[in-house]
Amino acid sequence: MAADAVAAAMAASSLGSDLEPATVRTAIRDVLAAGTARAGERVVVGGWVRTGREQGKGTFAFLELSDGSCASTLQVIVDAAVHPLARLTATGTSVLVEGEIKEPPEGTKQNVELKVSRVLEVGEVDAAAYPLPKGKVKLTLEKLRDVVHLRSRTNTIGAVARIRHQLAFATHRFFHENAFLYVHTPIITTSDCEGAGEMFQVTTLFSQAEKTEKELKENPAPSESEIEAAKVIVKEKGDAVAQLKAAKASKQDISAAVDVLNRAKEHVSKLEERSKLKPGIPRGDDGSIAFENDFFKRQAFLTVSGQLQVETYACALSSVYTFGPTFRAENSHTSRHLAEFWMVEPEIAFANLQDDMNCAEKYIQYLCKWLLDHCREDMEFMVKNYDKSAIERLELVSSTPFVRISYTKAVELLKNVTDKKFDNKVEWGIDLASEHERYLTEDIFKKPVIVYNYPKGIKAFYMRLNDDDKTVAAMDVLVPKVGELVGGSQREERLDVLKQRILDAGLPLEPYEWYLDLRRFGSVKHSGFGLGFERMILFATGMENIRDVIPFPRYPGRADL
Amino acid sequence: MAADAVAAAMAASSLGSDLEPATVRTAIRDVLAAGTARAGERVVVGGWVRTGREQGKGTFAFLELSDGSCASTLQVIVDAAVHPLARLTATGTSVLVEGEIKEPPEGTKQNVELKVSRVLEVGEVDAAAYPLPKGKVKLTLEKLRDVVHLRSRTNTIGAVARIRHQLAFATHRFFHENAFLYVHTPIITTSDCEGAGEMFQVTTLFSQAEKTEKELKENPAPSESEIEAAKVIVKEKGDAVAQLKAAKASKQDISAAVDVLNRAKEHVSKLEERSKLKPGIPRGDDGSIAFENDFFKRQAFLTVSGQLQVETYACALSSVYTFGPTFRAENSHTSRHLAEFWMVEPEIAFANLQDDMNCAEKYIQYLCKWLLDHCREDMEFMVKNYDKSAIERLELVSSTPFVRISYTKAVELLKNVTDKKFDNKVEWGIDLASEHERYLTEDIFKKPVIVYNYPKGIKAFYMRLNDDDKTVAAMDVLVPKVGELVGGSQREERLDVLKQRILDAGLPLEPYEWYLDLRRFGSVKHSGFGLGFERMILFATGMENIRDVIPFPRYPGRADL
Repeated sequence: MAADAVAAAMAASSLGSDLEPATVRTAIRDVLAAGTARAGERVVVGGWVRTGREQGKGTFAFLELSDGSCASTLQVIVDAAVHPLARLTATGTSVLVEGEIKEPPEGTKQNVELKVSRVLEVGEVDAAAYPLPKGKVKLTLEKLRDVVHLRSRTNTIGAVARIRHQLAFATHRFFHENAFLYVHTPIITTSDCEGAGEMFQVTTLFSQAEKTEKELKENPAPSESEIEAAKVIVKEKGDAVAQLKAAKASKQDISAAVDVLNRAKEHVSKLEERSKLKPGIPRGDDGSIAFENDFFKRQAFLTVSGQLQVETYACALSSVYTFGPTFRAENSHTSRHLAEFWMVEPEIAFANLQDDMNCAEKYIQYLCKWLLDHCREDMEFMVKNYDKSAIERLELVSSTPFVRISYTKAVELLKNVTDKKFDNKVEWGIDLASEHERYLTEDIFKKPVIVYNYPKGIKAFYMRLNDDDKTVAAMDVLVPKVGELVGGSQREERLDVLKQRILDAGLPLEPYEWYLDLRRFGSVKHSGFGLGFERMILFATGMENIRDVIPFPRYPGRADL
Repeated sequence: MAADAVAAAMAASSLGSDLEPATVRTAIRDVLAAGTARAGERVVVGGWVRTGREQGKGTFAFLELSDGSCASTLQVIVDAAVHPLARLTATGTSVLVEGEIKEPPEGTKQNVELKVSRVLEVGEVDAAAYPLPKGKVKLTLEKLRDVVHLRSRTNTIGAVARIRHQLAFATHRFFHENAFLYVHTPIITTSDCEGAGEMFQVTTLFSQAEKTEKELKENPAPSESEIEAAKVIVKEKGDAVAQLKAAKASKQDISAAVDVLNRAKEHVSKLEERSKLKPGIPRGDDGSIAFENDFFKRQAFLTVSGQLQVETYACALSSVYTFGPTFRAENSHTSRHLAEFWMVEPEIAFANLQDDMNCAEKYIQYLCKWLLDHCREDMEFMVKNYDKSAIERLELVSSTPFVRISYTKAVELLKNVTDKKFDNKVEWGIDLASEHERYLTEDIFKKPVIVYNYPKGIKAFYMRLNDDDKTVAAMDVLVPKVGELVGGSQREERLDVLKQRILDAGLPLEPYEWYLDLRRFGSVKHSGFGLGFERMILFATGMENIRDVIPFPRYPGRADL
């Protein structure tokens, strides 16, 4: 049949009729948000039992059900006649139930509850084996990191997940509304964003070596004598051809003999090829690892920042940003460091340091405002359980203009401080330590502070040199609770100055030729910054350990799942 | 001073007064969108000259200026009295100019133009050296891949960047509006999403080896005899202590001798430690590479899919999705494969295969509609230059319900086809080839087709086994132009069945214990799918090569920047 005939034949047929019908499930958030307005309505809800208890001498059970759509649970009532209660009440049990939304008895704290008429599905739990104990007996956050595949079922990690989601969504909205284009900078890179830290290498050499070693075990490389023997055969077959030709043999006979000769030659080249196979990682003649055999024919790494690459887009499309994972192979075991974390990096053409600060300030305020408007319940959970001042902090930051102060002034201020002894001595030229940053924002100004114009010696080569020749147009945004939240700069747009800065940093020019091209051809003033996304979550939630605000934390010795 | 006094002292001071004022720039999109409504207004615009030409015997110049905010350029007119024209007209030159918006002379195609009164900044271009030639002389897309740092300045790559941005933003909006939470699944993983393909390994062993080798070159490992000599000294120092004790020497003298002895012992352990340092990659006793010395104390890889990990969040928070980079270390040199690409992967609890299809259909339609509503100009550019039917395709897909057909029926249909000869023979059990998929969607149905219930033998272990014991609840969405755009499935939620499927696939259970836990504790019916983001861009734009729709393409032998 032709295509149209086939289609006609199918038209009569009942497509998709063998499929189970779709599930019509109502999110618990929607049930609770409507409150008694939906009383009397029949709905299907699904979720996991947070706590369950039999009541009325086993005639019915209360289940506190969570489906992750909000921090609150829905109280669900099941009669023993509807389903065996003992199979429903264990913490962690999943249920999909149909029931009626009811106004609860007066004096109870629920705004509505669900009276179940049918239990549609149950996923049971053996309470003794379940790694997350029931109710108030809480595992520590540290212990929860050992059950990273289940910890999102806890109130804390659930709240963090919703806050993280809202911050990510608000990030995209903010930049979209301000006409920034989202650019996916590469994860695998052959560039190094100087000074950002140690890099992970990306390779297929180990798997290649493994394959070769397996191959050689099954089929060892040929010995010299095997190859010699094969060469002798080539010689013989060659002689045979010569003899036939000399004897003026038939074309057919000669051609057959040539075929045999060619096969013998082929065999020799195969043997010679295989004799080069060596176990282990390939090395060059000088003993160094032969990365030209790797997947990208050179060394490749995981990115430490998308900045240099995103600059290529800013120098073409003006306002751009990247939001992606970045990596550090550093042996840090602190509560503030991860080997894999997410970073937001806007880059703006025709923008100086003041524009950069304006953008950072507006962005951070937008995020704070967004959480206040869209994440109240989860923020209240954080206030109650982790950080009394979390909401106040969001309110302060979202409504207060940030202080802007030069590095030189900041150092002056810190030197004059007498009511606090710093571990690190303050003097012009030092990189401000976390204690200094927090003192500036928490004690002196009690609001966010942007410090700008840092000494060139402590900052990266790409930051624009100021006219004083001593400082660069860098800026850090400091906020209460975490200190540095954003680091940014105006980029050096002058070709000659940039070249000199690269050389002064002891770096070769060649790998940066593409970066220099942006200054050779239609160079523009441009600026950008980076916000560590997990830092922002720590700031917002008041959580203490960065390993608890990313779903699957990676750090030295640990990469679960 | 105390913090408050410092703050008071600062209050009088003029913070931030040494900063250059902010730039007030108007995007070209906004100038053009307002049209003559803004005529007479003074604005500052910045951008790069696409084409420039002197006119009126060198008395003025026309510049076609692009700032990436839209596909169109703004016509800018500069008088020779305002700025030397020769420095402005070269393609690629950047300018920041102030001028007045004017209604253009009648009969010209611009809706408005800008008459420049001041040239604020210029970034010149040496036309002879600029890699992107002027005007109509276009580099091929292939050649542009060699100047990946500049190609975003071309009309095509600019349009693709804006379409890519809109698709990414629409993705986040769609899932947010439907109450999905965005979950960042890990990039570095120790799990393998079975069957997805070859993986890149992530390691610090090479840099460790390099460090060790450098160390050993500067300071060679101690020889056996050095260690022996140091041990002799320990012996001597020990004897000395014994003698002092025997001689009942003073506590002070004994203690001093013990100190000397301890230092000698320490020296020996240091030497012994250093004697273990070996150049090269560390190997275990059996000769295999000692990955326990690697950063994560085991082998770690770049993810091929976030699905298995995102399931842990779906089985706690119900509706979730991940949108991140994924990797394949495959030696593919085709126009459809990348080593690094982005994938969108929603995962829904309490959802069967029909729910999954509904979600995929709604999502794809949302994306198409979004582009029609928000990206008209760029889509028109694609229609004009790359694919006549690109807009029609978006209209068709956004407005037509998708056909749903079982794999078994699809095979029947394809078997009956007589007007086309397939390269791959059709019979029940095969994995449909691209030619089959495209024939179904482009020729038979002429609309998107969802094929479901595939033979279990060709699908992954985690897909839910159907009651026929022959097929699994998998589904692929096929669309005109690219064929398969989405692949998804209902996941196997039954512990015993899943275990058996893992074993049947020849895999060990141990690495999947965490995945099995999701079925042990409160298991739920759940489903999800993956959409290759670059595939979606190919589908939308009609571009032919996937290397042109990602900013920095990675493939065998190439990872520029």
